[in-house]
Amino acid sequence: MNDNRKLRVGITQGDPNGIGYEVILKALEDNRILELCTPVVYGSAKIAAFYRKAMGLPQVQFAQIASAAECRPDQYNIVNVTPEDYRPEPGASSPAAGAAALAALNAAVNDLKEGNIDVLVTAPINKHNIHSEEFSFAGHTEYLEARLAPDADGDDAGSTEKGKALMVLCNDVTRVALVTIHVPLSKVAESVTRENVLDRVVAFDASLRRDFGVHRPRIAVLALNPHAGEEGLMGEEETQYIAPALEEARKKKISVYGPYAADGFFGHGQFDKFDGVLAMYHDQGLAPFKTLACEGGVNFTAGLPYVRTSPDHGTGYDIAGKGEAEADSMRQAIYTAIDIYRNRQRYDAAHANPLRRQYVEKNKSDNVVLDLSKSTDE
Amino acid sequence: MNDNRKLRVGITQGDPNGIGYEVILKALEDNRILELCTPVVYGSAKIAAFYRKAMGLPQVQFAQIASAAECRPDQYNIVNVTPEDYRPEPGASSPAAGAAALAALNAAVNDLKEGNIDVLVTAPINKHNIHSEEFSFAGHTEYLEARLAPDADGDDAGSTEKGKALMVLCNDVTRVALVTIHVPLSKVAESVTRENVLDRVVAFDASLRRDFGVHRPRIAVLALNPHAGEEGLMGEEETQYIAPALEEARKKKISVYGPYAADGFFGHGQFDKFDGVLAMYHDQGLAPFKTLACEGGVNFTAGLPYVRTSPDHGTGYDIAGKGEAEADSMRQAIYTAIDIYRNRQRYDAAHANPLRRQYVEKNKSDNVVLDLSKSTDE
Repeated sequence: MNDNRKLRVGITQGDPNGIGYEVILKALEDNRILELCTPVVYGSAKIAAFYRKAMGLPQVQFAQIASAAECRPDQYNIVNVTPEDYRPEPGASSPAAGAAALAALNAAVNDLKEGNIDVLVTAPINKHNIHSEEFSFAGHTEYLEARLAPDADGDDAGSTEKGKALMVLCNDVTRVALVTIHVPLSKVAESVTRENVLDRVVAFDASLRRDFGVHRPRIAVLALNPHAGEEGLMGEEETQYIAPALEEARKKKISVYGPYAADGFFGHGQFDKFDGVLAMYHDQGLAPFKTLACEGGVNFTAGLPYVRTSPDHGTGYDIAGKGEAEADSMRQAIYTAIDIYRNRQRYDAAHANPLRRQYVEKNKSDNVVLDLSKSTDE
Repeated sequence: MNDNRKLRVGITQGDPNGIGYEVILKALEDNRILELCTPVVYGSAKIAAFYRKAMGLPQVQFAQIASAAECRPDQYNIVNVTPEDYRPEPGASSPAAGAAALAALNAAVNDLKEGNIDVLVTAPINKHNIHSEEFSFAGHTEYLEARLAPDADGDDAGSTEKGKALMVLCNDVTRVALVTIHVPLSKVAESVTRENVLDRVVAFDASLRRDFGVHRPRIAVLALNPHAGEEGLMGEEETQYIAPALEEARKKKISVYGPYAADGFFGHGQFDKFDGVLAMYHDQGLAPFKTLACEGGVNFTAGLPYVRTSPDHGTGYDIAGKGEAEADSMRQAIYTAIDIYRNRQRYDAAHANPLRRQYVEKNKSDNVVLDLSKSTDE
């Protein structure tokens, strides 16, 4: 494998009435990005032109290609997956917008599986208008889990990963993963079982090692209840499920700590001492994370054989078409996807060809000498 | 009423094995605090001496008094409410520590009701060891609600406030109030009813006006579910209970906005645009608040006829006796209690004696002239 070739980064348009095009155009504006990767946008050159003109956005010159297989380095590639007559209406939710978002996502995922792109970066969708017979998922993460998990289509039997996706939010300060994602708050407690917590800890540990290159990850786990349940006074899940799951994880040689009360944990900046933080539910992890992130947060879907990231914001209907959107998060999503792909290559290479121990004859008790005449690549 | 007299600030020791004494001694260290208020600590001069000596803490010279009624300005007063043979064990939870914390709290609340102190500042307790037949509450807030609410003992019939306490966290950046406080996460959703939300919005609005001196408060309300329920895809409480409650509040001329998804709300710094943020549950409000607060957060119990504040941290058993505790939060709790007491005086004075409109004869259509010969104080 040519490890140094430029990676092909598939970027979906997301909801074409949201801020997707704006952040894509802004993120790609500086053409030095072409030295780093080959962008392949899934959307429509016409919609891109609409936003460029209407909002005075950066002049990114797209080259329209029939399919990602034809993408060329040194140019901004765009694959048209949207009906020609689609007219963007910034800020308006419509079934047509949902259909356009879904078409881009489907095409990109197909290309990811077929090897036409290396990593996937998704612009935000509106979970309401994308809902359809074909898309009945709570979000990108759940959809990708169904389509990309090793056991989903039986096309990746060689992977050592488990079939479940893990949502990880990351920035330069911390990494936060979630046990439950897009479920109503009333259903959160029942989903926090010993098995689920253990499963997520194991997945997070594996991701920190392989995706983020952390040699011995230290993971902090948050409690479900206020004050970590206060020894049972405010909930039993900590003692009944979470603590036993962590005990189990420690038996698997995972360095895991907690459960910690979420407010004090973030208030005292304890995340600084850990490589990752496992939160029990969406707002518990994401509200403090975004409070810290300041525009540059990235959502990464761990646990799948393919790399997918996205900015950590939504469609931003309220500011769509106004030119106010910040592209930091989209830019970081592209960089992070590339980094994770490279980290995986490094990790897999290191584990596929472990360096053999070299023995030196120091004294009589240590007289086994490595025979270097044998090849390691047999 | 002598508006300028120094206020008597009752300060409970909290759990004597926690960091309570440390933060009290550090907060009182600079004796200019005696120009601002008269501190009355409920605890034990012996325990205070133990911490001073063991940890080299500031030399605050306490004058032991038999009861708060004897407190004198220009000195650090301490009322002994702890058995003489109590031996502090920093970091250890014990029934004796719980009993000592409760004795201080009971004595201080009695003095507050009898007018021997003006405001109450509480050091942190351990909710587990304080639990007893006498104290079956989830925390200070619930205990104080039971003892101090206008309808609790029928001793404050003249108050216009409702009987329920509202937990408000405040610092220089934002103010966060909670709909539910110390309940297990599995019980949160069922407590988010239209009545509860409306009741808390009304109480918060009243507190922002009277306690914080905000003329026309703007209140942001957070959603219960991730993504604010995404129009019903991830929970119905927003559409069924929260939005209708806000509609009702607007009819009462309260400026209320939302419900907002918690992660984006804090991530985009939207709290800057509001005078207060109403969160649905403990960690949703407190984790982002403490992430922002950086040691100086104060917990204020609104909705009661008496003023009570506390630092926003716990007993800190893990650092008790090590001299590492920060006293910022305790110091701010003292200042905030004084500020709120003064704000209430100002508000009540302003509303008791509204200024009458003065008419000036400008033209024939506006010829009603104020007769200043009549007294306003009849």
